[in-house]
Amino acid sequence: DYTKLDKIIIGVCGGDGIGPAITGQAQRVLEYLLKKEVDSGKVEFRVIDGLTIERRAAEMAAIPPAVLNELKECHVILKGPTTTPRKGDEWPNVESANVAMRKELDLFANVRPVRIPEQGIDWTFFRENTEGAYAVGSKGVHVDENLGVDFTVVTTQGCERIIRAAFEFAKSNGKKRVTAVTKANIIKTTDGKFLDTFKEIGKEYPDIIADDWYIDIMTAKLVDEKRRRDFEVLVLPNLYGDILTDEAAEFQGGVGTAGSANLGKRYSMFEAIHGSAPRMVTEGRDIYADPCSVIRAGAMLLAHIGHNEEADKLYKALDICTITEKKLVITGRDTGATSAAFADYIMETIENMN
Amino acid sequence: DYTKLDKIIIGVCGGDGIGPAITGQAQRVLEYLLKKEVDSGKVEFRVIDGLTIERRAAEMAAIPPAVLNELKECHVILKGPTTTPRKGDEWPNVESANVAMRKELDLFANVRPVRIPEQGIDWTFFRENTEGAYAVGSKGVHVDENLGVDFTVVTTQGCERIIRAAFEFAKSNGKKRVTAVTKANIIKTTDGKFLDTFKEIGKEYPDIIADDWYIDIMTAKLVDEKRRRDFEVLVLPNLYGDILTDEAAEFQGGVGTAGSANLGKRYSMFEAIHGSAPRMVTEGRDIYADPCSVIRAGAMLLAHIGHNEEADKLYKALDICTITEKKLVITGRDTGATSAAFADYIMETIENMN
Ligand SMILES: CC(C)[C@H](C(=O)O)[C@@H](O)C(=O)O
Ligand SMILES: CC(C)[C@H](C(=O)O)[C@@H](O)C(=O)O
Repeated sequence: DYTKLDKIIIGVCGGDGIGPAITGQAQRVLEYLLKKEVDSGKVEFRVIDGLTIERRAAEMAAIPPAVLNELKECHVILKGPTTTPRKGDEWPNVESANVAMRKELDLFANVRPVRIPEQGIDWTFFRENTEGAYAVGSKGVHVDENLGVDFTVVTTQGCERIIRAAFEFAKSNGKKRVTAVTKANIIKTTDGKFLDTFKEIGKEYPDIIADDWYIDIMTAKLVDEKRRRDFEVLVLPNLYGDILTDEAAEFQGGVGTAGSANLGKRYSMFEAIHGSAPRMVTEGRDIYADPCSVIRAGAMLLAHIGHNEEADKLYKALDICTITEKKLVITGRDTGATSAAFADYIMETIENMN
Repeated sequence: DYTKLDKIIIGVCGGDGIGPAITGQAQRVLEYLLKKEVDSGKVEFRVIDGLTIERRAAEMAAIPPAVLNELKECHVILKGPTTTPRKGDEWPNVESANVAMRKELDLFANVRPVRIPEQGIDWTFFRENTEGAYAVGSKGVHVDENLGVDFTVVTTQGCERIIRAAFEFAKSNGKKRVTAVTKANIIKTTDGKFLDTFKEIGKEYPDIIADDWYIDIMTAKLVDEKRRRDFEVLVLPNLYGDILTDEAAEFQGGVGTAGSANLGKRYSMFEAIHGSAPRMVTEGRDIYADPCSVIRAGAMLLAHIGHNEEADKLYKALDICTITEKKLVITGRDTGATSAAFADYIMETIENMN
């Protein structure tokens, strides 16, 4: 319970590409909303700027140890996108910083809400965030030059905690249905364990419908405008969660509109689900990057630390600025609207609510 | 080249649930279109009815050996859906008959076209069909009761042949772009090999644009009505092919509208991409099952064996009966339209073309 802490430290970790620009704007909005707490010393914002691909490449570390220590001193983190290199890129093959942070801080639940009120859509995805197809990273095996093997690894405990989180969320939010998405007919051992665990835990929640679908047909169901409304809370192994939430976010307006909460027992981290768009930086367009998604992640952060009133205001302002008014939404060189102008517009909108 | 054979044997393998009912109707349509060849003995239809879940469970075999021999005597196969059991089902845990057939007959290319002419969409998916996440089947490992491991396995040769098939198809059909879909930033060994192989082979086709996307963002791109038209030929590892083609088929009208060609050097098999719907049988509704998808698979079969004229007629009739006229399309108890009535309507429509 964060409200009992003497001081909450919010780490702001810009990451790569457009990351520093947009998280900077999100920070401005949060500081505005938490002005009283910042002034009284109850909240501290701490900028952590070492999580860049340049530094990670130089140290050949997914997260440089010094940066990891800085992150661990924070209670909650607002994070920008980080570049994930692969062979053939200009960068050496360091592991994904995203994935490393989820593992190092044990952020096992990746919670991604997608809402389209006018279509009756209110989905909350619970993506398992520390194991599955992401467990082994680059440590798959080239048996010989012609044969490659990757591993998918799950633990019973890993399945249990994400599935229980989904059911608990459903219960405390009056949701009637939790849906598991797997490919247990083919990936029998690991997805089988996930699905079996889901069915067991489901029995503890007799008032909630627990159903399950395979990931292939699920991507089709999300397209079906009538039937997709029936879904409420979805719980998925890591890889399917990665895939299905991008599709889902697109119906809401694109991955650029969705925020994501990475929650663990001790730490939590909030981020946009889009990438670092390095080309925007090389072309000098990063000041025009759309900060909407990371500001939304900021609203999730506010709610998480118990500042529900401020979170609600921010959600409302985001709706007004992106759906209702659409004044400066479309940041970009054409419109002349910068990230900073969008953040100003958000703050102005909140100011006018008072 | 099938046209050089004295006789082409077409196996019709009903499978489970609604399978026998709908493949039976597809066979009627094909026999009608190939009447001359059937009468002269140039084409023989051979019904193979042993691929049922009852028999597979009794013999504890994905494909009973006797059935496999029957299948291997055919040149091409039209196949209905088969039930894939998993633990907790009423059936023992035999491997998927679909997956076994793809492996046993070495049907390495799963080709799935999706067309929406009025939206300018004409996609052809080349799904790798014998390895990847499907390679190991139920032989993942329960290291202990708390830890499960599954394997993803690819070979260089396995990547090469599907990727080359995609580029060759693009080349001979005047397509300008081939897109690979992987998650090589995370599944580095196997998807990495797939993507590296793609980039290598792409160099041999300088006139074709070879680009690649990650599977998560690709599911979002297919939703984007403007940008999705740019895709033409897509090539994917097994699991992503499974996932993305169901989503794609939904835009065309549902998995019930899509046919699928499983092609190897020696054999080929054509099937619907939907499931066996056992509940329709128990409720006595199988005579109302929609045979559209397996009839479309039949049209792909006709084209494959060199009967292009008949294939074109059948495609045209399918368009007329499902898009233009929509007379009896919606088979089902409510409308009173049976599978047989739909097949009659298709044949009548072709008759009227002459
Ligand atoms: C950038 C990438 C490693 C990451 C993932 O695959 O998890 C991203 O797609 C996400 O969804 O957060
Ligand atoms: C039934 C199932 C085993 C199969 C698959 O996963 O390949 C199906 O979804 C398909 O796409 O043909």
